[in-house]
Amino acid sequence: MITGKNYIGNQLSAKGSKTYKTFNPQLNINNENVFIEADSQEINEAVSLASNAFKECRTLSGKRKAEFLSAIADEILALDDELIKIYCSETGLPEGRAKGERGRTVGQLRAFAELLEEGSWVEATIDTAQPDRQPMPKSDIRKMLVPLGPVVVFGASNFPLAYSTAGGDTAAALAAGCPVIVKSHPMHAGTGELIASAIINAANKTGMPNGVFSNLNSSGIEVGTQLVSHPKVKAVGFTGSIRGGRALYDLAAKREEPIPVFAEMGSINPVVILPSALKNKGEALAKTYAGSITLGTGQFCTNPGLLLGIKGEELSHFIQNLSNEIVKVEPSCMLHPNIIGAYESNKQKALKQPELTVVADYNSDVKANYARQTVTTVEGATFIKNTTLHQEVFGPYSMVVQCENAEQLEQVISKLEGQLTGTLIADDDEAKQYYKVIDALQNRVGRIIYNGVPTGVEVCPSMVHGGPYPASTDSRFTAVGIHSIKRWVRPFSYQDWPNNLLPDELKNENPLKISRLVNNKQTKDVV
Amino acid sequence: MITGKNYIGNQLSAKGSKTYKTFNPQLNINNENVFIEADSQEINEAVSLASNAFKECRTLSGKRKAEFLSAIADEILALDDELIKIYCSETGLPEGRAKGERGRTVGQLRAFAELLEEGSWVEATIDTAQPDRQPMPKSDIRKMLVPLGPVVVFGASNFPLAYSTAGGDTAAALAAGCPVIVKSHPMHAGTGELIASAIINAANKTGMPNGVFSNLNSSGIEVGTQLVSHPKVKAVGFTGSIRGGRALYDLAAKREEPIPVFAEMGSINPVVILPSALKNKGEALAKTYAGSITLGTGQFCTNPGLLLGIKGEELSHFIQNLSNEIVKVEPSCMLHPNIIGAYESNKQKALKQPELTVVADYNSDVKANYARQTVTTVEGATFIKNTTLHQEVFGPYSMVVQCENAEQLEQVISKLEGQLTGTLIADDDEAKQYYKVIDALQNRVGRIIYNGVPTGVEVCPSMVHGGPYPASTDSRFTAVGIHSIKRWVRPFSYQDWPNNLLPDELKNENPLKISRLVNNKQTKDVV
Repeated sequence: MITGKNYIGNQLSAKGSKTYKTFNPQLNINNENVFIEADSQEINEAVSLASNAFKECRTLSGKRKAEFLSAIADEILALDDELIKIYCSETGLPEGRAKGERGRTVGQLRAFAELLEEGSWVEATIDTAQPDRQPMPKSDIRKMLVPLGPVVVFGASNFPLAYSTAGGDTAAALAAGCPVIVKSHPMHAGTGELIASAIINAANKTGMPNGVFSNLNSSGIEVGTQLVSHPKVKAVGFTGSIRGGRALYDLAAKREEPIPVFAEMGSINPVVILPSALKNKGEALAKTYAGSITLGTGQFCTNPGLLLGIKGEELSHFIQNLSNEIVKVEPSCMLHPNIIGAYESNKQKALKQPELTVVADYNSDVKANYARQTVTTVEGATFIKNTTLHQEVFGPYSMVVQCENAEQLEQVISKLEGQLTGTLIADDDEAKQYYKVIDALQNRVGRIIYNGVPTGVEVCPSMVHGGPYPASTDSRFTAVGIHSIKRWVRPFSYQDWPNNLLPDELKNENPLKISRLVNNKQTKDVV
Repeated sequence: MITGKNYIGNQLSAKGSKTYKTFNPQLNINNENVFIEADSQEINEAVSLASNAFKECRTLSGKRKAEFLSAIADEILALDDELIKIYCSETGLPEGRAKGERGRTVGQLRAFAELLEEGSWVEATIDTAQPDRQPMPKSDIRKMLVPLGPVVVFGASNFPLAYSTAGGDTAAALAAGCPVIVKSHPMHAGTGELIASAIINAANKTGMPNGVFSNLNSSGIEVGTQLVSHPKVKAVGFTGSIRGGRALYDLAAKREEPIPVFAEMGSINPVVILPSALKNKGEALAKTYAGSITLGTGQFCTNPGLLLGIKGEELSHFIQNLSNEIVKVEPSCMLHPNIIGAYESNKQKALKQPELTVVADYNSDVKANYARQTVTTVEGATFIKNTTLHQEVFGPYSMVVQCENAEQLEQVISKLEGQLTGTLIADDDEAKQYYKVIDALQNRVGRIIYNGVPTGVEVCPSMVHGGPYPASTDSRFTAVGIHSIKRWVRPFSYQDWPNNLLPDELKNENPLKISRLVNNKQTKDVV
C-alpha cells in the first residue's frame, strides 16, 4: 500500500508541507496518491541515522550483506502485481518492460550477493614482515577495500527499478557496506515507495541497523541539494541530465570536504558506418536502426542519436531507407509531459540550426504524450563547427552526419564530447583500413560495439557503462556490473596489526578462503 | 650538465623571460644555475606533443612500456654523483638520504616495469556470447583498463626524487600509458632537469614517441594553472600543501570537462597511546617519538603531529620524557627559507591559541634554515572546540592532547579531518577494550599502524598512501605502490569485437598468459 510518506530509516514519516502527485502519461491524468516531500528535519534525521548505521555496516561480513541483498530481491518479487501496476501507471511503459526491468533489478541484487559471498572483491593484499631486512626492517602490511560512508542515490526518470530505489547504485553501495539514502524520483514516487518498503522489510528481516536505508520524496531540487551538501554524506550516485548531474558535481566539489559524485549523464552514442558495410547491408541496417532509435520511445541513455558515414550514393540510399523505415514505426508514449516537452524543445533547437535537413518526420496525429520520431542529416564540416548539434535530444531522434572522406570522419569523432558507447558497422576486411577512425572512436567512449546496436546494456562483469565526460563525471568507474562497487570503496592498510584484530579477509589463516595477493603472488593459501 | 632549459618533449627550450635560481639552505646562498620558466607557448607545445604521443602510448604493449621504465631507472643510476651533488645542494639533505631516495625511486620504476611485464593488472574481464539465450541473445563483451590521456605531475618539495620528476606519480602514469608533463618544483629545478634528461634519454633509447614526457620549469603558479586548465590534459597528480592542492582541485572541477585531480595534501597523523601501553613502555615510546617527530626535520607527510592519550600520571610522565628527549635532538636544516618560514609562522599561529602549553622548545641558537623542535600540550575539550589546532605545522612539531577518558578520546578522533595515517600504541590485551576508539580512528585514516611510528612509507602493493580529505582529494586511490596506476586508467568494453582486432590482453588465445576473469571465473586459460 502506498502511504505517500518518506522512510526515515525504518519509520514512515511525513512532516513536510509540500505535496505532489505522479502522472499517468497514457491516460494523461494525475495518479491519485499524494506524496509528501521530505522536509529539512527529516533529511537531517535520515543522514544522521545513516551515519550511525555506518559504524555497524562497515564491519558487516560479506555473508550478512549478501543475505540482506538477497532478501531485498525476494521482497521485491513478493510485491508482485502491485508493483507492476503502479510502475505502469507512473511511466506509461508496458507491462513487459516493467517485468523485464524488475528481472534485471533482482538479477543485479543477486549478482552483488554472489560477489559478496565469494568475497575476493575486496582486493586483499598482504606483504609479510621482513624483520631482518637491511638497512631497515620491513613491517607487515595488509590492505583491503573498505566502504566510504553514507551514499546518496538519485533515482533516474527512465529506469524506475534498475537505476532507482533498489537499482544498480543502491545495490553496489549496500554491497560495499555504505548506508544509502535515496532521493526518490518525483515521476515514480509510488514505485519508489513500494521498493523502499521491500528494502526496509529485508533490512528488518536480516537484522540490519536502522538507517541502512532511507527513501526521501522530493519534487524539486531542495532535497537533493541539502543531501549532497550534508557533511556526513560521503558519495553520490546520479543518472540523468547533464544539467542536473553537473549541478550536483559542482555542489559536491565546493564542499569543505569535496566528495566523489558519480554521475552518468548525456550521450549521443555515435554509430560509424563504413562504406563497404553500407553497400552490402545498408538495407538491413536501416531497419535495425529504425528499431534501435525508437526503442522505448528513444528513452535510453544508449540511444543512437548520431550516425556517421562517408558521403555517396550508398549513404544517400541508407538515409532514404532509414527514413522510410522509421516513419513506419508506431509512435509510443513518453514517461511524462516534462520529458516530451524537453524532447520537443531540444528537437526544435536542433532543427533551427542552419544547414540541417529533416529527412524523416512522423507527422500524423498522435495521442497526448506520444513522441513523433525524426531523422535529420547534416554535412561533416557543419557538424564540426556547430557544437549545438552535438547536444543530446533525449527521445526517438537521430542525425546522420555525411562526411567528405575518412579523414573528416576521424575529425568529426575527435571533436565529439565523451560518450557512453560508440558503434562500428564494418565488413570483416574493412575495419583494419580504418584503424585511425576506430582509434579516435575508442578514445571518446566507454564501450565500443561491432556490428550491433548500442541499446541494450548487458549486466555482466565485463560491461562498462560510463565514459569520458559528459557521459560520466568519472570515467574511472562503471555504473553497471559488479565492478561498480568500486565507486563506493577506498583502500585501507593495516601495518603490523595483530592477527586476531584483523578483519577475516586479512587474517593469516584466510578463513574466508578468498583469493589474495600475498607477497606479490595471487593465492588462496594461508600466510 | 644543467642547462636551465625546459624539455618540451625531446627538445631543450628556453623561450621565456622569467628566470630563477635554486637555493642551498646549508650554505644559505643561491645556487649558480639559472632556470628559465616555461612560457605559454612552450606549455601549449608540450601538451600538444603529449596529446599526439598519447595516440601511440595508449596502444603500447606492456613489454615496451616496461623497457621504457627500466631504461629510466638505468639512466637515473648513470647520473651517479652529479645527481647526488645537485640534490644535496638544492635541499640541504644529507648524501645518505639522497642515495636512499634514489634507491626508492629506481625501485618504484622497476616495480611498475615488473607489473607491466606480468600484465594481469589490466583487469581483463571476458563474458562470452550466448547466441541462444532467451528472451535475448547475449553479446560477447570484454573489458580492460586503458589510459586516460596526458597527465600533469607536480613535483613535491620534500621528495625531489621519489615524489617528483620520475617519482611515483610519473612512473604510475607512464606505466598506465599516459604521457606525462612535469611541472618541476622550483626548489630543486636542477635535480629535476637531470632526471628529465634521464627520462628523455630512456625514451629515445626505447623508441617512445616524442612528447611522452616533458619537464617545465616554473617558479610561481602560472605554469601549473595553465596546464591544469588545458583541455587536452586529462588528469593531475600533486603532493603538497592543502592550499595548493585545493586550488588545483577547484580549478580542475571548474573546467568545461572536469578532470580527476589526485592531490595528496596535509596530515597530522594522530597517534593514540592507550593507558596500559603508556604505563609499560612510556619511556621507550618517548625516545622513539622524539626521533619520529624530528626525523628529516619533520618534513615527512606522515610526521606524527598529534599524540593522543588519557590524562593521568603516566601521560604526564610521558610528556616529560618526550620533552626531555626531543630537546636532545640536534636541530637540522630545512629544505628552503620558505619552508622554515612557513614552519615558524604556522607554529606561532598554533602557539597563539589560548590554553596551549609549550612543554618542549629547543631554544639554543641554530644556524640559518635550521628548525627548532617544539612540543605542546592541550586539553581534549579545547582541541575539539578549536579547529585551528587541527592544522598541520609542517616540521619538527607535535602536540599532545590530554583527554579526560576513552569517550573523549573517541570524540577527539571523530572530530579529526581525514589523515594519511593513524597509529595505535597498545598492550596486547588492551586494544580489544578500546574497539570504539580504534573504529573511529580507522574511519579517519588511510593506514593504521600498531605499536610503531607513521614515518617511513614502505613501497609495496599493500601500502595505502592517501586517505579521507584533506589527506587526499580522492581516498579511492593510493599514491604509493603499484596499485597507484589505477588513478590514471579507466575501464573500457569491447562488444562483439572481432578477435583479431582485440588487444592481446583480451584475445581468445590469451597470448600474454595473463590472469583474466572469464565468465566470472579467474583463470589464465584460453577462451
